[in-house]
Amino acid sequence: MRFEIVARDPGSAARRGRLYTPHGVIDTPVFMPVGTRGTVKAMTPEMLDSLGVPILLANTYHLYLRPGHETIRALGGLHRFIGWPRALLTDSGGFQIMSLQELREVTEEGVRFQSHLDGSSHWLSPERVVEIQLALGADIMMILDQCLEYPATHESAERAMNLTGRWAKRAKEFWQRRAISRLATTAASGDPEAPLAIHQSTDSALFGIVQGGVYRDLRRTSAEQMQEVGFEGYAIGGLGVGEPKAETYSVAEFTAALLPKDQPRYLMGVGTPEDLVECVALGIDMFDCVMPTRNARNGCLFTSQGKLAIKSARYARDANPVDAACGCFVCRKYSRAFLRHLFAVGEMLGAILGTYHNLYFYLDTMRKIRDAIGSGEYNKLWSRVRAANGGLNF
Amino acid sequence: MRFEIVARDPGSAARRGRLYTPHGVIDTPVFMPVGTRGTVKAMTPEMLDSLGVPILLANTYHLYLRPGHETIRALGGLHRFIGWPRALLTDSGGFQIMSLQELREVTEEGVRFQSHLDGSSHWLSPERVVEIQLALGADIMMILDQCLEYPATHESAERAMNLTGRWAKRAKEFWQRRAISRLATTAASGDPEAPLAIHQSTDSALFGIVQGGVYRDLRRTSAEQMQEVGFEGYAIGGLGVGEPKAETYSVAEFTAALLPKDQPRYLMGVGTPEDLVECVALGIDMFDCVMPTRNARNGCLFTSQGKLAIKSARYARDANPVDAACGCFVCRKYSRAFLRHLFAVGEMLGAILGTYHNLYFYLDTMRKIRDAIGSGEYNKLWSRVRAANGGLNF
Repeated sequence: MRFEIVARDPGSAARRGRLYTPHGVIDTPVFMPVGTRGTVKAMTPEMLDSLGVPILLANTYHLYLRPGHETIRALGGLHRFIGWPRALLTDSGGFQIMSLQELREVTEEGVRFQSHLDGSSHWLSPERVVEIQLALGADIMMILDQCLEYPATHESAERAMNLTGRWAKRAKEFWQRRAISRLATTAASGDPEAPLAIHQSTDSALFGIVQGGVYRDLRRTSAEQMQEVGFEGYAIGGLGVGEPKAETYSVAEFTAALLPKDQPRYLMGVGTPEDLVECVALGIDMFDCVMPTRNARNGCLFTSQGKLAIKSARYARDANPVDAACGCFVCRKYSRAFLRHLFAVGEMLGAILGTYHNLYFYLDTMRKIRDAIGSGEYNKLWSRVRAANGGLNF
Repeated sequence: MRFEIVARDPGSAARRGRLYTPHGVIDTPVFMPVGTRGTVKAMTPEMLDSLGVPILLANTYHLYLRPGHETIRALGGLHRFIGWPRALLTDSGGFQIMSLQELREVTEEGVRFQSHLDGSSHWLSPERVVEIQLALGADIMMILDQCLEYPATHESAERAMNLTGRWAKRAKEFWQRRAISRLATTAASGDPEAPLAIHQSTDSALFGIVQGGVYRDLRRTSAEQMQEVGFEGYAIGGLGVGEPKAETYSVAEFTAALLPKDQPRYLMGVGTPEDLVECVALGIDMFDCVMPTRNARNGCLFTSQGKLAIKSARYARDANPVDAACGCFVCRKYSRAFLRHLFAVGEMLGAILGTYHNLYFYLDTMRKIRDAIGSGEYNKLWSRVRAANGGLNF
C-alpha cells in the first residue's frame, strides 16, 4: 500500500497525502465514518457515495459475532456483502473487548470472552484476528491490541503495552505466512484474473497500534516495538478513553513524532471537529469516530456556529436550514422546523437527515483542512478554530 | 380537479385514467404510500422521487397534533414543510379518531377527543377538519366521517352513515365559503402570482366518503347522500376494518357501481397486492395502505413469488436478491443474506432497503395493472393473479 505526502504545512506537523488502496485513492488527512456492523447507521451506501466517502471503518469483533466472518467470506467478502466499492478498514476488536469487562480473560495467548449477545464463549488470538480480517477482505487491517481504560497505573499500562508488542510480532508473522500462501494458491490457480487478485491481496495493509496510556516512556517503547516489527501504517490507540482533552493532544503529539515520517498515522476513535483540526496539526493522517453519526441520532447537529440541539422547542417554527453556511442537500432543502418535528415524533427520517448532515460537516471539515495544508494556510485555519471557542467558524 | 378516463377494460369495471392536480398529473389506478406524520417511514423524499411516487397520503389528525397545522401553514404549507413537490392527499382523521375508543365523544356537532399523546382535550368538526386541511394545503382533502369497526349493528352503522351524510353537507358548504373568500383575498392582493395562487387554491379537491358498513341498503343511501352534496371524488370508507375479505370485495364492488362513472373512486386503507388487482377490476382508481411500509419494517417483503420473511435463518447465506424478477436497486445490488443480517442486528438500513423494495413492488404492480388495462389485457393479468394462489406471479 503506497502512501505519498504531497504537501507539508510549514507552521505545524500537518501534512497532506494520498493513500493508494486496492479500492481507490484516499486523500489524507481523512475522516472514516464508522459502520460497526457493516452499515453506517441511518445511511445507505448510496448516500455515503454521494457524500464522497472514500473509506469506511467496520468492526471485526461485531462482524465476527454476526453474521460471522465465514458467512461474509462465502458471500464474496465484506465489500461485496455490504455493497461498498471503496476502501474499508477493519478495527481489530481490542477496544470492544476492553469494554466487555467481566466477560473476558486476557492471557499471553489471546483473549477468551463471552459474547455480549448470548453469553457464548469465544477465543481470539493475534493470529485469529488477522485470519478473520483476511476473510472480511478489508483494505486496511488492524492488529489485536490490549486497550486499557483511563486511568490505568503505570504498571498495568506497561504490561498491556508489552503484551500488545508481542501480539504485534505474532500478527505480522502470521500475516506474512498467509500472504505467501495466498500468493502461491492464486498464482497456481490459472485464473485469468490471478494478477489482479494477487495485486489486491498483497496490496492490503496491516497497521500496528501504539499503546502505553498517558505515559511518555511507555509510548516511546511501544512506538519502537511497533517499528521494529514493521507495519505499513501506525495507529495511536488507547486515547479518547476518558483522559482530559489536553492529555489526549499532548500524548498524540508526543507519539506521532515518534512514528515514521513517510507512513500513515491513524488516531483511533477521535473526535470532535475541533479535535480533527488540532490533531492534524500534530501530524495525524487518519481519524474515525462515532460522534457525527451517534450525535445525529440523538439530535445533536454540527454547524459552522457550533452544536445545535435540534430537538429544542425553539426550532419548532424556524424556517432556516440547520446551517446556512452548509452546502449539503439537507441544508439546501429542509428547515430546522421540519427536522425538529421529525425528532419530536420519533421518525427515522430525522436520524437519516441528521446523520447525512453531520457526516457532510465532518467530510467538509477535512476538505477544508486538506485545502489549507495544500495552500500553506493551515496555521490560519487552526488559529481561527482556536479563537472560535466552541463554534467552528470556518 | 380534472379527471379523465383514457381506457376501459372490456372484461371488468377496471379503468385507466389521469388525475390533474396542482402538483402534477397522476396516472390511475394509483397506489399512495402513507406518510402519516409527513414522512413515509424509513424513506427520504428523494427516495420516493426515485421510485416515481406521484402522490403521498398524510394524516390530518396526526399533523394537527404535531407539529400543528398553524405551524405548517406558517412554514409555507405541507409540501414545502416536508420537501415534497408532487401531490398530497390528507386523510380527515375519522379513522384515527375511531381507534381512540374511550378517549372520544361523537356528537352532532363533531368529535371531542383526548390526545393519545398527552391527554389534552381537542375538538374537531366537519368545518374544522376542512380548515386544518386548507392550512396544510393538500391537493386532495377528505371530509370528516364517522368510521365504525367491524362488526357493527345495522342500527349503529345507519346512525354513523347518516351523521357522516350531514357532516358531508357542512364540510362542502364550509369548503365553498372558504374558496370564495380565498379567491377574493387573492384577487385583491395585487400579487403578480395571484392567477397561479387562484388556480392552485381552486384546483384542489374535496372528496366525500361513503360509509354504511357491510349493509347494502346503507351503502346505497350513503352513496346517494354524497352525490347529492356533490364532490370531486368519492372514497369508500369503513372497509378493511376486520370484515372477511370476500365481504370487502363484495361491498367495494356494490358501492363502486353506485358512484359516478367519470369521477375518481378511492378505496381507503386497502390492501395487499392481490387486493389491488382485485379491486381495480371493481372500478377503483386510488388506494392507500400502510402494508408495504409497515410490513417492510417487520421484515416481510413482497415478491413475485409471494411474501418473504427476510429475518429467517434460511437466508443467512443466500446470495440471491430478494426478488430476481424485481428491477429495484435493492434487488439489483444487495443479497438476501445482507438484508437478513441487517434485520438480525437491528440496523435501520434493513428498514430502509426493505421499505424501498416493497414500495417499488407496489408501484410496479400498479404500473403493470395500468399497462394491462391500456392494452386490453387486464383480464389475463387478473386470472394469472387469481391462479397464483398467494404468490403474485406477474
